[in-house]
Amino acid sequence: MQLLKDRILKDGRAVNEDILRVDTFINHQVDPYLMRECAKDFAEHFKESGVTKIATIESSGIAPALLTAVEMELPLVFFKKQPSKVLNDDLYQTMVTSFTKGTNYELTLSRKVIDSSDHVLIIDDFLANGEAATGAIRLVRMAHATVAGLGVLIEKSFQPGRSKLTEAGIETYSLARIASMSEGKINFLED
Amino acid sequence: MQLLKDRILKDGRAVNEDILRVDTFINHQVDPYLMRECAKDFAEHFKESGVTKIATIESSGIAPALLTAVEMELPLVFFKKQPSKVLNDDLYQTMVTSFTKGTNYELTLSRKVIDSSDHVLIIDDFLANGEAATGAIRLVRMAHATVAGLGVLIEKSFQPGRSKLTEAGIETYSLARIASMSEGKINFLED
Repeated sequence: MQLLKDRILKDGRAVNEDILRVDTFINHQVDPYLMRECAKDFAEHFKESGVTKIATIESSGIAPALLTAVEMELPLVFFKKQPSKVLNDDLYQTMVTSFTKGTNYELTLSRKVIDSSDHVLIIDDFLANGEAATGAIRLVRMAHATVAGLGVLIEKSFQPGRSKLTEAGIETYSLARIASMSEGKINFLED
Repeated sequence: MQLLKDRILKDGRAVNEDILRVDTFINHQVDPYLMRECAKDFAEHFKESGVTKIATIESSGIAPALLTAVEMELPLVFFKKQPSKVLNDDLYQTMVTSFTKGTNYELTLSRKVIDSSDHVLIIDDFLANGEAATGAIRLVRMAHATVAGLGVLIEKSFQPGRSKLTEAGIETYSLARIASMSEGKINFLED
């Protein structure tokens, strides 16, 4: 999506070969206009997929996921990050390791909000190693629901997230795919 | 706001005299239609206040704050919760104690996204003891910006948040004000 790629080139910052900072327009300050255009793109792409719910992971996924939910007129569910396992029959939990931050957390979903009748579109800001995304998919499946696909704003295509998801049979739709970052320069994959 | 109050009566759950669960429509699953109507109400109320930015606290404030930002065509900033102080000249931080959860965190704002030219409207889901709100106000002031007001979805009027904010000179606008909860019954303040 050209609008997002142009904005990444203008305001994103490649801190090193792995880390891209987008905190002035996506994950600390949010540009609502840009986010809405991204949401319209997700909604258009997945409009024939029979989606019943949008899901994301707190907190930076909430903005694009909520606006996609508005566009598609569907409920949003955001999975919560808990520091440790909670013993509670009302919850599904699965552990996620964040390589970027070097931390673990329990991704958490209430049994009340997703069930076997749901076909869930997962939206997130980044796809890198795919740990958060595969955790979200595990939770959806623990709830006996199915996954309609994954929509992400920015894919780091030099990391293994997409291939893990493809192997798991999940359609992944990314609005900007980054081939590499070097010496502060951001290079996108050719469409 | 009648739509929100009706929904609280229908789907909210008073767990005890202090705790109200709204996780099927506000802070785990989100109803985008309801949230948009709430955002329109905030936008209408604060339209003459000269607001330049919307701010909130991750994660449950993001949904109402983002849709208010969309309505008002303004950027959104969400303050992040860090487990501990980060030594970084690019950040403002202030400690917040959550009585509800019995935890402390450092509320964090990048210097890049709010400055002395900003007049900031803070939006959040709940106002109870006012610890999160007063922390957000401290951060805005650390950035040499001014506070246009606070908009909250649900105020627990039996807790001291509102009076703390009034004493601090902050206009507080709440869409639903709860006078008390007892034996599972939720009682609103008269308008």
